[in-house]
Amino acid sequence: MRILLLIAFLLFSTDPLHAQNNDSVVFRNIANDILLNGTAYQNLRVLCKEIGARLPGSPQQLKAEKATFLMMQQMGADTVYLQDCMVPHWVRGEKETAYISAADGKKMPLDICALGNSVGTGNNGLKAEIIEVTSFKQLDELGEKGIRGKIVFYNVRFNPAHIEPWKGYDETTGYRWNGPSRAAKYGAVGTMIRSLASNTDDHPHTGGMRYNDSFPKIPCIAISAVDGDYIAAELKKRKSIPLYFRTTCQTLAKVAGHNVIGEIRGSSSPDEIITVGGHLDSWDLAEGAHDDGAGCVQSMELIRVYKKLGIRPRHTIRVVMFADEENGGAGSDKYAEIAKAKNEKMVFALESDDGGFVPRGFRFTLEEEKIERLRKWLTLFYPYGVYKFEAGEAGADIENLKPLGAVIAGLYPDPQRYFDIHHSRSDVFENVNKRELELGAASMAQLVYLVDKYGL
Amino acid sequence: MRILLLIAFLLFSTDPLHAQNNDSVVFRNIANDILLNGTAYQNLRVLCKEIGARLPGSPQQLKAEKATFLMMQQMGADTVYLQDCMVPHWVRGEKETAYISAADGKKMPLDICALGNSVGTGNNGLKAEIIEVTSFKQLDELGEKGIRGKIVFYNVRFNPAHIEPWKGYDETTGYRWNGPSRAAKYGAVGTMIRSLASNTDDHPHTGGMRYNDSFPKIPCIAISAVDGDYIAAELKKRKSIPLYFRTTCQTLAKVAGHNVIGEIRGSSSPDEIITVGGHLDSWDLAEGAHDDGAGCVQSMELIRVYKKLGIRPRHTIRVVMFADEENGGAGSDKYAEIAKAKNEKMVFALESDDGGFVPRGFRFTLEEEKIERLRKWLTLFYPYGVYKFEAGEAGADIENLKPLGAVIAGLYPDPQRYFDIHHSRSDVFENVNKRELELGAASMAQLVYLVDKYGL
Repeated sequence: MRILLLIAFLLFSTDPLHAQNNDSVVFRNIANDILLNGTAYQNLRVLCKEIGARLPGSPQQLKAEKATFLMMQQMGADTVYLQDCMVPHWVRGEKETAYISAADGKKMPLDICALGNSVGTGNNGLKAEIIEVTSFKQLDELGEKGIRGKIVFYNVRFNPAHIEPWKGYDETTGYRWNGPSRAAKYGAVGTMIRSLASNTDDHPHTGGMRYNDSFPKIPCIAISAVDGDYIAAELKKRKSIPLYFRTTCQTLAKVAGHNVIGEIRGSSSPDEIITVGGHLDSWDLAEGAHDDGAGCVQSMELIRVYKKLGIRPRHTIRVVMFADEENGGAGSDKYAEIAKAKNEKMVFALESDDGGFVPRGFRFTLEEEKIERLRKWLTLFYPYGVYKFEAGEAGADIENLKPLGAVIAGLYPDPQRYFDIHHSRSDVFENVNKRELELGAASMAQLVYLVDKYGL
Repeated sequence: MRILLLIAFLLFSTDPLHAQNNDSVVFRNIANDILLNGTAYQNLRVLCKEIGARLPGSPQQLKAEKATFLMMQQMGADTVYLQDCMVPHWVRGEKETAYISAADGKKMPLDICALGNSVGTGNNGLKAEIIEVTSFKQLDELGEKGIRGKIVFYNVRFNPAHIEPWKGYDETTGYRWNGPSRAAKYGAVGTMIRSLASNTDDHPHTGGMRYNDSFPKIPCIAISAVDGDYIAAELKKRKSIPLYFRTTCQTLAKVAGHNVIGEIRGSSSPDEIITVGGHLDSWDLAEGAHDDGAGCVQSMELIRVYKKLGIRPRHTIRVVMFADEENGGAGSDKYAEIAKAKNEKMVFALESDDGGFVPRGFRFTLEEEKIERLRKWLTLFYPYGVYKFEAGEAGADIENLKPLGAVIAGLYPDPQRYFDIHHSRSDVFENVNKRELELGAASMAQLVYLVDKYGL
């Protein structure tokens, strides 16, 4: 830290004060216009309330493509166009049902959701005994003898002691993605996860999973944290608890989807591209408000505010609504594939996909010493509550651009409430705060302004 | 900023690294225990759901005194006691009613609330023409000729361009406090304010006001931002709009209330006092969850976690649930009066009264150069999302301690959502996030640990 401060001090000493003053005026103008005249919140309302959940391959996703195409046109983008890409088409089917046999023999219903990409149980459902594990290690120790014929219940809690909830997610997300096949390897007939949630409520959280083709594809579901605690407590009292669940989800043939792209053409280096985006698709239990409607409307706002304020970027700025992040990343793959084929020069990419909460900073996939150089900009951001540039993951939709030479970055909003609502029925418009959303949009437009002007 | 960084650098250079390491372990232990075993959220549930709104002089306030007395005893405070003080006893009376005459002559109901300390209209209500003003300047220009016999509608918006919503509050709060008497001076018969809110919804926000005894006491109410916009639009179309409202609020004789105080006795300087607190009273439209149930339970948590971890402070730490902040500050006055009479040495006071949102820093009533010296501590706080020590108002309940020699400080939680819910029916338990509340409690216990150990 001592060294960081010394470096920062030296950098401040050499940075021309008048440049900072001029930039601080632009920063202020961007924030003013977004807070006073912004359309991000209203556009999010359209995505959430007029359109709704945007599962890849769903009619809603196509509606959202049309809506955002029109929004970017109305904002004055120099050009708006689509990139065709085939997206997975997983459907949830009928509302899932489940029950366990209570101590008195009665059926006790459970609120469940299938995990994305899961196979269904078939019409008759699936019934088997629950075996609880709290780690893959425990699963491996139980082995085929302990697992065969059972439904594995991965009851792995978020560790509340992590100040950074993403750490809790990183520690548990493997059970959702890989848990089914790892259990199927030992003969399990189904899996159930405790939802990957930072709070304790009644909502099951869905999310993506992938089968390993070496093992049978078994159905997999999530239950809420409250139900997870309940079943764990019951399992302590009773030797055997049978679980029944029925899911009719299935994966259909891929269908056409599109990346929606709005551009402001660069004034002096039009062939050098700055990409800014979020993913337009969402899980289907709610409205995809924070994940990632927020990132989409924040990204589009950059076009509106630059045009409104007459900011003419040197590089071409492309705002991209990626077609499919939740279910495999087809939109991101297509965007990178076309960029590579055209030999486009990708200089920078910025994504917002961690929720529409109040911004605290940005994460860069850069070496620490390069990030430290960028920290001279933090004096400009500080009055807007943005104080943190750090190394970290930037965003799933832009990772593909790193091999093409882009520096990639992600907006870092305050993370404390994200995993309360992530992939659950709580991810609705009402849970997004207008000012927090707008401040995130402003900080993104501000960062891109600096990167465009000074480089990285 | 260059100078600040240089100072910070020099301070870091002289601070022994091992001290920071040891302190960082204590910081971690405090945060762990509050996040894993904390009672703040559960205690807030009791204050909000089992007790409810805690208007000074109400039975709920007395219940809350008993409940927090017991909580601090159970947390292991060395002593818990009450300080008697007389508190104002304003009562809202029957649910307020109001309507305006719509363009078609029909009655259009309005959702209103009386301002705290307002007189009522009497049983028959009050009916008069609305005159809108957007500033005191405009009021003065209209003068008696334009105002007499009318209801003044102060339609003053929060400026959304302020990054700091407190600035919006500071700019508008005068209309609530002083607007009635300033209008009465010109012969107004009542006043109505646009609620002091950072968002635009249907909820009227109450709050304190004071009459100037030189002018008639006229009834005063608040309407929501949505209704404020509606009436302003109607006034543009129609010359005259009569408003009827009926309020039965009144101020009764003062009644007995109490500050509830829990102490940990200092090990080496027991006569030097560190005060930590919030105010137990609240407005009556909801549950006083953020304002200031959050501050109360965060303050009490300090006793629990110090006792649990065996932290023995050198100074005596007093956790105070102040009896009456919203309606005049009787609790705070009494606390300072007794401290002065006993010639107690007040070294430091910390309040949390800006909501239970995620912490960003602390505000100190100190000169900038002294705050800069304290910033060496920010490396300890940074992993907990706390990065900001700045000069500013600390908290209404502890301001009285400054003349007694105390350095006073306030927790600075993220402010973006506070004025959406402040003093309105939205200030309920459900709008407090458990982790955000706990992180605020942890940062308070951490700051007090450092102040107790190193002084200021």
